[in-house]
Amino acid sequence: MTLPATLQHELSDLFGDGWLISPSERVAYAFDNSRREALPDAVALPTTRAQVQALVRACRAHRVPVVARGRGTNTTGASVPVDGGIVVSFERMDRILAVRPGDRCAVVEPGVLNGDLQAALRPHGLFWPPDPTSAAFSTVGGNLACNAGGPRAVKYGASRDNVLALTAVTGSGELIICGTATTKGSTGYDLHRLLVGSEGTLALIVEASLRLTPTPMARRALRAIYRDVSSAAQAVARLMAQPVTPSMLEFMDADAVRLARDVGGADLPHDAGALLMIEADGDEELLPYAIEALMAAAEGDGLVSLDDAADDAAREKLWAARKALSPSLRTLAPGKINEDVVVPVSRIPHLVDGVQALSREFALPIVCFGHAGNGNLHVNLMYHPNDVEQSARAHAAMARVFALTLSLGGTLSGEHGIGLAKRDFMPQAVSAPTLALMRQVKQVFDPDGILNPGKLLPP
Amino acid sequence: MTLPATLQHELSDLFGDGWLISPSERVAYAFDNSRREALPDAVALPTTRAQVQALVRACRAHRVPVVARGRGTNTTGASVPVDGGIVVSFERMDRILAVRPGDRCAVVEPGVLNGDLQAALRPHGLFWPPDPTSAAFSTVGGNLACNAGGPRAVKYGASRDNVLALTAVTGSGELIICGTATTKGSTGYDLHRLLVGSEGTLALIVEASLRLTPTPMARRALRAIYRDVSSAAQAVARLMAQPVTPSMLEFMDADAVRLARDVGGADLPHDAGALLMIEADGDEELLPYAIEALMAAAEGDGLVSLDDAADDAAREKLWAARKALSPSLRTLAPGKINEDVVVPVSRIPHLVDGVQALSREFALPIVCFGHAGNGNLHVNLMYHPNDVEQSARAHAAMARVFALTLSLGGTLSGEHGIGLAKRDFMPQAVSAPTLALMRQVKQVFDPDGILNPGKLLPP
Ligand SMILES: Cc1cc2nc3c(=O)[nH]c(=O)nc-3n(C[C@H](O)[C@H](O)[C@H](O)COP(=O)(O)OP(=O)(O)OC[C@H]3O[C@@H](n4cnc5c(N)ncnc54)[C@H](O)[C@@H]3O)c2cc1C
Ligand SMILES: Cc1cc2nc3c(=O)[nH]c(=O)nc-3n(C[C@H](O)[C@H](O)[C@H](O)COP(=O)(O)OP(=O)(O)OC[C@H]3O[C@@H](n4cnc5c(N)ncnc54)[C@H](O)[C@@H]3O)c2cc1C
Repeated sequence: MTLPATLQHELSDLFGDGWLISPSERVAYAFDNSRREALPDAVALPTTRAQVQALVRACRAHRVPVVARGRGTNTTGASVPVDGGIVVSFERMDRILAVRPGDRCAVVEPGVLNGDLQAALRPHGLFWPPDPTSAAFSTVGGNLACNAGGPRAVKYGASRDNVLALTAVTGSGELIICGTATTKGSTGYDLHRLLVGSEGTLALIVEASLRLTPTPMARRALRAIYRDVSSAAQAVARLMAQPVTPSMLEFMDADAVRLARDVGGADLPHDAGALLMIEADGDEELLPYAIEALMAAAEGDGLVSLDDAADDAAREKLWAARKALSPSLRTLAPGKINEDVVVPVSRIPHLVDGVQALSREFALPIVCFGHAGNGNLHVNLMYHPNDVEQSARAHAAMARVFALTLSLGGTLSGEHGIGLAKRDFMPQAVSAPTLALMRQVKQVFDPDGILNPGKLLPP
Repeated sequence: MTLPATLQHELSDLFGDGWLISPSERVAYAFDNSRREALPDAVALPTTRAQVQALVRACRAHRVPVVARGRGTNTTGASVPVDGGIVVSFERMDRILAVRPGDRCAVVEPGVLNGDLQAALRPHGLFWPPDPTSAAFSTVGGNLACNAGGPRAVKYGASRDNVLALTAVTGSGELIICGTATTKGSTGYDLHRLLVGSEGTLALIVEASLRLTPTPMARRALRAIYRDVSSAAQAVARLMAQPVTPSMLEFMDADAVRLARDVGGADLPHDAGALLMIEADGDEELLPYAIEALMAAAEGDGLVSLDDAADDAAREKLWAARKALSPSLRTLAPGKINEDVVVPVSRIPHLVDGVQALSREFALPIVCFGHAGNGNLHVNLMYHPNDVEQSARAHAAMARVFALTLSLGGTLSGEHGIGLAKRDFMPQAVSAPTLALMRQVKQVFDPDGILNPGKLLPP
């Protein structure tokens, strides 16, 4: 595809130095963290919502695809312009427009980095709960469009739970204002939560009113080691059924523990069948009580050891085990398929057992760890990507992981989204009439299908 | 309107003794708490989702309206069958299908009463956060369809924040399953939160997977009296900006305090310009610290007195002031328009001051109280409904209250919804392109407009 000359002129005038057409400039916007790649025909760097609106209207007239982009850190191909067209990168719309502590609200442009926002909120004693590991280099717009989460979501919710209102440009170039910057509302249809997780396929977010939370004064962590996955999962259920909700509740299976120990050098025992990292946060004076409650819930059949990190240094050491993990994975094989399936918490043992059975059946290492308090596990399937047979086997195994997840009442993605990677599994995850309705909703927001074509919904 | 004979026969066969056509039976389903009234042509009492689906399909073929009904406690006319047709009352679909404590999840039919659900959850140490004052006689389906809340919403959220998945029948008779019973998810468009607050205009909810919260062990309340509204509102902002979120944060203006004292007999001082009821919940051991933090935040310029209810009896006495209020209102005038507008917390003083100015301008008493932590105030405008001139004045004043609320960045309803009562104000609250999109979304779910016609969206 090449852009029609009239469109090219119109947009070049509109964007000035925010209009990139040289191949060397465009290539930086061709891929995302999925390692997929497709060159856009042009890249636009808007500074105002009016520019975004004018761009969408112009593109609609010419049926040219428009692909929103934060920083391309998503893992599903969601920001790769597979059908060409124009990538709209929000890097110049990165202002924090207002912080209103009494309203627990911040108003931002979509291109602000999550980490920059958190830094700006710190002096106010507030934070925005979504905490993807990519926070330092992913945008609020991208976080919202993927419904990004992180370890803190178990207590504070993911992106969708922490947004009050959105201003966006639909595929027909209309500017819509969805929701109100209040923490409660029952005024018509909830369109703003519908936009969250829609991966740029319904509308381009140009402003967000975010719901903030007061920063807890202190944190303290526990490390619980269990004989096997099932004992750990039972502890997760106990931890989630008592009143002190942990601020993080992370899980590692036996392989993950072994890797963290043998490759990452973490100080972990040999008889660990599963590990939980449990964190509480709150006032300094309240923390000992919270930790006591969490320790009581963590105790039970199959507990091998329970360590309380009394100070920050000890806490860092506990977390080191988890952090040592990702880099260690590559020692198993150079290629990785990392999917973030989610199941009801009580089904975690069935998921992990089933995944281990698939690992044996397909003769490929699969390592599970992740956000146990939400039942959101990262299933890491390791393989040699250059080995065609093994690569096919890996993808076949992952298809079975999805089928297993769905059979357990879970779903395809907890926080990464669908993008290209999981699009073709949507008919298994979502019933035919529900999927048909999603397509019709897409059509309402984007009648000509110009917004991020090919993503989220199967063709 | 009378029902076509074929439809009448088909549905009579389908529902048996759950098909009511005699006027004396139908009249019980003609009104709701809005005191509006319209007789349905028939009432269906389904026991299965298949019946609901068959009914909607049959009604669609004949273009006959279908109005879902819980217990008719809503205040906006949302369940009044203004265009006739069939009322579908969910009173026989009232089973609790599963309680899964480890997943913090309950699966229920829509007709279960909120209070019955809470009672069933109690032995598990769990509760469902939405706590409308009508809990004992309103249904979960109705709560969801209105996005009902209550005092606890400030800490635990309203209905929309506490639902994981919904099964529903759309206006085209399709059974859709929206969401997954997991606490996190990023798999396609978020249709289930879209159904919450849609007042039966998009689909009939036939099953809900609800998000549960562990019951706090104990509660403790504070009563803070302020010189004026503005000092109280500043305290609200302080209370919401520190880490201990109150489990309730209720506001009463000077008139409300006076009524509670003079008419309700509550023990309240004469110099109270505004009152806050502040509650904390949690573990017995943690409560003193939480209360200390809340007391510190409540203190400040304009504080007249701060009472800590050390035991349950003292707590009840504090709440008595609030409870004495509603019955006392009628001493001002027999008629009441009670709207639950919502503004950002920092705008509460502007709202209350503006409402007082309107009270003077229109020469009608207006009393404000409500859920201050969410900026969700109940504005009670008192008048003589039989006095035509006064009645018109009352409605004109309320229109100005809405305009004021919107000018402060707030919206029409925090928890009661739109229904008939506020439908005509929607174009002021929602921009034209956004409202147009809502209409198109309605058309997708309900192509022939048979579901609860005349509600939520203006004609
Ligand atoms: C090292 C690493 C760690 C990660 N850890 C986590 C984690 O812990 N939790 C987690 O949830 N994710 C994680 N991710 C995934 C990723 O960071 C998130 O999905 C993030 O939200 C993407 O933000 P982005 O700005 O990079 O958006 P992009 O990747 O550029 O875009 C993502 C999607 O959002 C759309 N989009 C972007 N901006 C807008 C807008 N303004 N309007 C409409 N649509 C828009 C795009 O079209 C695309 O569909 C991780 C990624 C990496 C590389
Ligand atoms: C004394 C009193 C106190 C109240 N206090 C509060 C309060 O504190 N907070 C608050 O938020 N509200 C309050 N309300 C309002 C009311 O109780 C709530 O709106 C409640 O949620 C309505 O539930 P219901 O079962 O009576 O539903 P109904 O009034 O019968 O119906 C309400 C709406 O829901 C739709 N509906 C019902 N069931 C379904 C279904 N299965 N599928 C689809 N749509 C459906 C109806 O069509 C209608 O649009 C109060 C009401 C009273 C009378």
